[in-house]
Amino acid sequence: MDFDVAYEGKAKQLILLEDDRDHYVQRFKDDATAFNGEKFAQFEGKGALNNAISSFLFEKLEEAGVLTHYIERRTETDMLIRKLEIVPLEVVVRNHVAGSLGRRTGLKEGSKVDPPIVETYYKKDELGDPILADVHIKMLDIVDDEELDQIKQAALRVNDVLQPIFEKAGIRLVDFKLEFGVDSAGAIILGDEISPDTSRLWDIESGDSLDKDVFRYDKGELIEAYEEVAERLGVEV
Amino acid sequence: MDFDVAYEGKAKQLILLEDDRDHYVQRFKDDATAFNGEKFAQFEGKGALNNAISSFLFEKLEEAGVLTHYIERRTETDMLIRKLEIVPLEVVVRNHVAGSLGRRTGLKEGSKVDPPIVETYYKKDELGDPILADVHIKMLDIVDDEELDQIKQAALRVNDVLQPIFEKAGIRLVDFKLEFGVDSAGAIILGDEISPDTSRLWDIESGDSLDKDVFRYDKGELIEAYEEVAERLGVEV
Ligand SMILES: Nc1ncnc2c1ncn2[C@@H]1O[C@H](COP(=O)(O)OP(=O)(O)O)[C@@H](O)[C@H]1O
Ligand SMILES: Nc1ncnc2c1ncn2[C@@H]1O[C@H](COP(=O)(O)OP(=O)(O)O)[C@@H](O)[C@H]1O
Ligand SMILES: [Mg+2]
Ligand SMILES: [Mg+2]
Repeated sequence: MDFDVAYEGKAKQLILLEDDRDHYVQRFKDDATAFNGEKFAQFEGKGALNNAISSFLFEKLEEAGVLTHYIERRTETDMLIRKLEIVPLEVVVRNHVAGSLGRRTGLKEGSKVDPPIVETYYKKDELGDPILADVHIKMLDIVDDEELDQIKQAALRVNDVLQPIFEKAGIRLVDFKLEFGVDSAGAIILGDEISPDTSRLWDIESGDSLDKDVFRYDKGELIEAYEEVAERLGVEV
Repeated sequence: MDFDVAYEGKAKQLILLEDDRDHYVQRFKDDATAFNGEKFAQFEGKGALNNAISSFLFEKLEEAGVLTHYIERRTETDMLIRKLEIVPLEVVVRNHVAGSLGRRTGLKEGSKVDPPIVETYYKKDELGDPILADVHIKMLDIVDDEELDQIKQAALRVNDVLQPIFEKAGIRLVDFKLEFGVDSAGAIILGDEISPDTSRLWDIESGDSLDKDVFRYDKGELIEAYEEVAERLGVEV
């Protein structure tokens, strides 16, 4: 089969399908980047693990009635998705304090965020993905008030579905990043991925990181951590 | 007269009055700091200029019905104010893009922000005064929703009063920082100062800075710039 890469990202490729302009193949790569591209490495098997975990979680969300771009898992590294016009926001849900939230607020790493909060960052590598308040989103004309409200509500709903799934697997869902897009009918749909690359997952017992922080802060073997997540969730890789 | 310094800040002192626990003398210093204290200098006469300009603007705001802590100008460097419990937010109003707003949004320096926006920063030197979204203000329990709304409305009202005063003086009010506090009755009151130390003021014709950016970026003589502002506003120093 002929294929064209429509978009080559840091962690995934979007591949065009012949005679089908409504879908993409989303291919998960083994590349890992951190600190806005400053740190870079490859981990054999990461792409397959993220595709498997992400597919599993999208299926759970679809079952719970959340609208996502997910159609099906196609191969080890590939997922069939609906094409969206991605909203240039990184939408972060936080259940516990970690990373920049601790630096911003002075609150203790690990302390509970109750109720959970939704933060919005500008998805713009050249600006370093800065945080945005609602007024910035409005002045940049990224989405209108109603769409922003829908995005925040959907993000909290995703959290409500995922948090107990991770908890049953002995994993604390500390925070995670979502991307939303708009379909041809104008509906807000969850896109991108949900994986250990895009979330903070802590072992509930030990507090150990089971996510990309293993790579960011050299905390151990990334593939072992991601395999642990897949196994505990009962995901077939 | 005996006096006690209740608070020694970077640009001002708050001085306790004997037999009067409801007021302070706010004394403007000649000290200038920038970049979270990294850059430091003294400018003879800055305190008097800021006291005069700030007093003048507070009087204009009071005339327009804005509630402020200002009672009267006492001496060259001193202003009598009502004691408030300061809300630890730096409330920034922006009419044009400058500084961090340009870096955050990628919008061109000087371009118009229409309608004007209100940003909120955490007044906490040890954290570097990070920007806060409404969700952070709520989780930190800084003010409740209604108070936050009042603060933002009051900030925009201040802008509506000040912007034409500067415009008539040939000065573009690019942005400025306000601090609000709560009085003993629980009302939200404008506190602190409004001066070239806490605002960006550009000559409408030349675009030259007439504010603390002169010091931050070594753009010329600070005292001359502040004197120019006072003179154009018709302020007696
Ligand atoms: N359903 C979709 N339709 C179109 N684009 C999508 C969809 N889902 C995700 N994307 C985009 O595809 C890209 C995925 O590749 P990734 O490696 O994560 O890129 P990036 O380096 O920009 O984060 C991202 O730009 C993401 O916004
Ligand atoms: N009416 C008021 N009552 C109590 N505190 C005030 C009032 N107005 C301003 N302040 C506080 O007084 C201090 C003024 O001194 P300044 O040198 O600006 O301090 P800082 O270095 O903290 O910015 C600030 O902490 C400000 O919040
Ligand atoms: Mg990505
Ligand atoms: Mg101050």
